[in-house]
Amino acid sequence: MKVGILTIGNELTSGMTQDTNSSFIAREMKTEGWGIAAMMSVGDSESSIAKGLDYMLEISDAVVVTGGLGPTSDDITTASIAKAFGLNLYTDKVVLERIKERFEKRHLKWTDNNIKQAKFPEGAEIIENPVGSACGFFLERGEKIVAVFPGVPGEIKRMLPEGLLPVLKWKFKGSEKGTTRKTIKLFGLTESTIDEAVAQLDIDLPGISIGFYPRFPEIHVVITSVNKDRYALKENLEIAEMRINERLEKNIFARDHETMEDVVAGYLKDKKLTLSIAESCTGGLIADRLTNVPGSSDFFERGIVAYSNPSKIALLDVPHSTIAQKGTVSEETAIAMAEGIRKISETDIGLSTTGITGPAGGTPQKPVGTVYIALTDGQMKACRKFIFGWNRRRIKEISTQWALEMLRRYLIGRDI
Amino acid sequence: MKVGILTIGNELTSGMTQDTNSSFIAREMKTEGWGIAAMMSVGDSESSIAKGLDYMLEISDAVVVTGGLGPTSDDITTASIAKAFGLNLYTDKVVLERIKERFEKRHLKWTDNNIKQAKFPEGAEIIENPVGSACGFFLERGEKIVAVFPGVPGEIKRMLPEGLLPVLKWKFKGSEKGTTRKTIKLFGLTESTIDEAVAQLDIDLPGISIGFYPRFPEIHVVITSVNKDRYALKENLEIAEMRINERLEKNIFARDHETMEDVVAGYLKDKKLTLSIAESCTGGLIADRLTNVPGSSDFFERGIVAYSNPSKIALLDVPHSTIAQKGTVSEETAIAMAEGIRKISETDIGLSTTGITGPAGGTPQKPVGTVYIALTDGQMKACRKFIFGWNRRRIKEISTQWALEMLRRYLIGRDI
Repeated sequence: MKVGILTIGNELTSGMTQDTNSSFIAREMKTEGWGIAAMMSVGDSESSIAKGLDYMLEISDAVVVTGGLGPTSDDITTASIAKAFGLNLYTDKVVLERIKERFEKRHLKWTDNNIKQAKFPEGAEIIENPVGSACGFFLERGEKIVAVFPGVPGEIKRMLPEGLLPVLKWKFKGSEKGTTRKTIKLFGLTESTIDEAVAQLDIDLPGISIGFYPRFPEIHVVITSVNKDRYALKENLEIAEMRINERLEKNIFARDHETMEDVVAGYLKDKKLTLSIAESCTGGLIADRLTNVPGSSDFFERGIVAYSNPSKIALLDVPHSTIAQKGTVSEETAIAMAEGIRKISETDIGLSTTGITGPAGGTPQKPVGTVYIALTDGQMKACRKFIFGWNRRRIKEISTQWALEMLRRYLIGRDI
Repeated sequence: MKVGILTIGNELTSGMTQDTNSSFIAREMKTEGWGIAAMMSVGDSESSIAKGLDYMLEISDAVVVTGGLGPTSDDITTASIAKAFGLNLYTDKVVLERIKERFEKRHLKWTDNNIKQAKFPEGAEIIENPVGSACGFFLERGEKIVAVFPGVPGEIKRMLPEGLLPVLKWKFKGSEKGTTRKTIKLFGLTESTIDEAVAQLDIDLPGISIGFYPRFPEIHVVITSVNKDRYALKENLEIAEMRINERLEKNIFARDHETMEDVVAGYLKDKKLTLSIAESCTGGLIADRLTNVPGSSDFFERGIVAYSNPSKIALLDVPHSTIAQKGTVSEETAIAMAEGIRKISETDIGLSTTGITGPAGGTPQKPVGTVYIALTDGQMKACRKFIFGWNRRRIKEISTQWALEMLRRYLIGRDI
């Protein structure tokens, strides 16, 4: 079963409003095991709607239409669909009464253009709207179905599960496959390296497909399993995940909705370890990410954004001579910062960053993008140097990710 | 001139990823006065791409395609388009060399699947990608044009203005209306208050329309001017902007691409003032936002994320008795934090936040969402109390915005 999605509205084709209905509907359809033939947006024009609907009906078994059911003059979806199919419009008395009651209850002024929302094409089945005045409807066209909904995201979210899914299931029952999905989050490898590694695994399981999604600075590998057999659906997903795991384990830091900071926070809490951070080039972003995790005060003692040299010396006890001889951006300074913050804060772990995010401040020896990240637990101290080829914000983001990744590696006992 | 937009990727038709490229491209086209025939998303399937392209070419003069130009096996856009048009692929030596150089420069491991990104259909004109490895291309089909771009939003944003707009202008130059736009950014009023204020202004100028876009925690008012007459196009926009300005000036903090942190940083630099920040509940987000501004080291001396009570006492000289008597989340503690960080850092201004972001930690007297923000310049000290009704991340975001807004008001000499 293939579903087409047609969203209607000048606000969409002008780029003023981001269409979120299509993604929502696609996810709902996928959950039922139905594929999406295409998603299309057209403006409030009779001919665009007619042509778009015609194309979508050609490539799909069911077309879900949203938008253009309001009372104003630019809302022409119902009339355009009726005209495209050569159907007359009728006024539904029950719906009309309900709209009038709604107006009275809310003390809104009645205007006659609201009658429009009670008009439907002949033969249409009305879909109730529990949260708004615009009802939806569906029409059967031979073996196919066209279902029409208002464009307000909150309304379609309420109407789809009860108003459409049962109809589609009843009409297209039997043929569906289930879909399930697993997201594996990797860091520290390029997309093409991951792709090649997965390709070499040569995973050839029925209904399994694998996609690669760069989410800077992470890469997400999504395994999708599609199967009629509910047991094979899960089993094949697990086998595929296990095989990718075996091959890329070192670079996998989280799964599904978990974030890097969730994972690191989890280890810190489990091990009852405390952390303090001295940030220069990351400017507070490491602290910001860690404090997004509820309960972060259990392990996060303090962070210092030591942006100036005097602040590094005064707050972190970085020796003046280290900065003078080795420079602010150096391994020695990074380590002194991590040691300083750890001692002053009396925490188990100290973490630090120092670097040049640009656009100014680079030299031939230390170009923009040079970053040192250091970690110490009092006994062990480690520092890594990076040269990143990105802009200011991205250098902050990837440095933060590396700092959290180094912390993660430390916490699971791996080389940093 | 009508433009069609075709976005390609299983991540779009599965609903996993929200397509933002279509809106961006639509806005760019509208700015030039061109209409959008339709926007369509299809999956990574040869036949879906071929059919979709065929339909879009039928209803448009130019089709902009994005997505599926990466090195991995599911990236099949180039090959599918070539096949649909019956064209062979060739390898562009210059592009191939550049991709290889990119890999060397970034010390990335070369894998042969990357050669794919140097392949183009015969007759294609290559569109340079200054920020990624996937070049775009365009093909002429009789009187029509097909332009193909990678799907990464940051890349297409860089490539479109220089790589595509000049070609389209040259090919379809002529009679259309121009569009221009102004974004006014407001903070501290609700959407309905702003809507009502603007409605009362009763701005009735030819070709002017006004839209409201909530961008938490900001509200953006966008004035759009559409006119054939290039003089009236600008003139009417300026009149509308002036009138909104007169009415809502106090809550307008920035325009167009400027951010709150840009504005605050600009004032600090102009006045040669220095700043230090003591953050508790905002967890580093104020420092993060300010250090996104290039050259922020000119005014930003240091930030302290004092998450624990001992750190507030040790680092900020907050008297133990203040915390014991008034509590960590109190006006007195907020002011002591701002005074402490200012003195210790020897800066002109000290700024602080303390609050309860939840989900745990609330009490009937101080519920989750209670936040104090304080600012001092040594003589003046000010503190505001807020009770926000949002989740953890949003409480951090709106508290950060209020801290920057209080700083902005101080810098322009207004009541905080």
